[in-house]
Amino acid sequence: MSQFSDATALQPDGPGRFRADVHPDWSIAGRTNGGYLLSLLARAATEHAAAEGAATPVPVAAAATYLSPAPPGPASVVVDTLRAGRTTGAYRVRLEAAGEPRVEATVTLGRLSPDAEPFHDAVPQVQLPPAEQCVLLTRKGPGFDVPIMQVVHERLDPACLGWATGSPSGGGELRGHVELADGAPVDPLALLLLVDALPPATFDLGLGGWVPTLQLTAFVRALPSPGPLVVRQLARLVEDGLVDETCDVWDARGRLVATGHQLAGVRMR
Amino acid sequence: MSQFSDATALQPDGPGRFRADVHPDWSIAGRTNGGYLLSLLARAATEHAAAEGAATPVPVAAAATYLSPAPPGPASVVVDTLRAGRTTGAYRVRLEAAGEPRVEATVTLGRLSPDAEPFHDAVPQVQLPPAEQCVLLTRKGPGFDVPIMQVVHERLDPACLGWATGSPSGGGELRGHVELADGAPVDPLALLLLVDALPPATFDLGLGGWVPTLQLTAFVRALPSPGPLVVRQLARLVEDGLVDETCDVWDARGRLVATGHQLAGVRMR
Repeated sequence: MSQFSDATALQPDGPGRFRADVHPDWSIAGRTNGGYLLSLLARAATEHAAAEGAATPVPVAAAATYLSPAPPGPASVVVDTLRAGRTTGAYRVRLEAAGEPRVEATVTLGRLSPDAEPFHDAVPQVQLPPAEQCVLLTRKGPGFDVPIMQVVHERLDPACLGWATGSPSGGGELRGHVELADGAPVDPLALLLLVDALPPATFDLGLGGWVPTLQLTAFVRALPSPGPLVVRQLARLVEDGLVDETCDVWDARGRLVATGHQLAGVRMR
Repeated sequence: MSQFSDATALQPDGPGRFRADVHPDWSIAGRTNGGYLLSLLARAATEHAAAEGAATPVPVAAAATYLSPAPPGPASVVVDTLRAGRTTGAYRVRLEAAGEPRVEATVTLGRLSPDAEPFHDAVPQVQLPPAEQCVLLTRKGPGFDVPIMQVVHERLDPACLGWATGSPSGGGELRGHVELADGAPVDPLALLLLVDALPPATFDLGLGGWVPTLQLTAFVRALPSPGPLVVRQLARLVEDGLVDETCDVWDARGRLVATGHQLAGVRMR
């Protein structure tokens, strides 16, 4: 069992209900990662849909609203079927811990073909040096503990790491090679993690603070091939205490496989 | 009363409940526009939040999942408060018509300052000819009726209108000057309409068919200045019967004020 599948494991607890265990490793400075939580909720949607006999196994879209931080430990997940169709279905999923709602998501399930080819692709893979010339991020963050770096290996382009030494590039873009630390293959659920696993792109703007995600929507666009992936996190607009970021993920073939769009709070020094 | 505020009017119908009237003008070939529906749901969230005493009037994020087409006529809207905070709140909104759920959205309400200035902007306004050199789209679409073009005036760059004469550019991008036809000012609710009001960018790829939105997430990033806006709809990836599009909206000052990201079905001829 991989670390990721272990950390997103669900125990059935009645129709549309699951027990989960929010794992402490998938966190940054004591805060559970939003992409990890989105994966967990989407997994609940897929397991509930399968139990209902749906033939729509892939979370093609997942939109989460973060209500309050989800602490490590026991949690309950409730799934409601909004619509179950032949080619797509929609499910509302809510995670609660200690009696409080933490995250609510709507997950659209569909089907993707392993043989699909792009008809049109306006998002070419970002260029970056080979993995061996990139810098592996470690659990020891800039002044705080980043446990997620032990379970997700992120090798960032040195050109976008100036913030680590006080000289951010100002581009608002982080990019790197990413894989699960235990070598487990990245499936569509893990893609939902990867669209929110890089450090905030605002680090590259000299904004070093915590960037709490308010809303994150991810689209899984293709089934990823085996091997390491390339991820780019881009800050689009920083204004009025908010930032919206777009995160693209390409597989080892260089194909766009997932995109995340998030709105987050940011302290503009 | 403007056409837009009239078409999104809500009658209170008990705590967290409203009656709405889905207006036939905000539609394309008999299908109610998804951006219009998102505006309507977000308005319900703002009115419910105000009734509860919240001081968070702006829908800074709104994520909708479309369950089934919403026909013109009476509809009911139900709002549940997920979290009400001092600076942001989250609300689940559902629209039902004829006893069936049609759209469910999560709306994040916050506050935006009229004096905010961008700290970082990676999305410069798209270049296009002045409005008088652009082409006003009419209700008479390519083989079908497009009533929404009577209430939203869209003047598209002729360079991205080749599809109308059988010669799409292949870029997958539509761009134009947009305003409400009756000259009403565009408020944050109307921005949620505008992120889904242009024709599908897939038209510019020679894919002429209906593009049903599965999921649409919009971020309102700034309060728009008065005057016409510029809108760009871009197809990012078309693959496996799905397209994801990003739509950016700039106000008359050239400032990015809203962005929409959607996943939709597409027939790949």
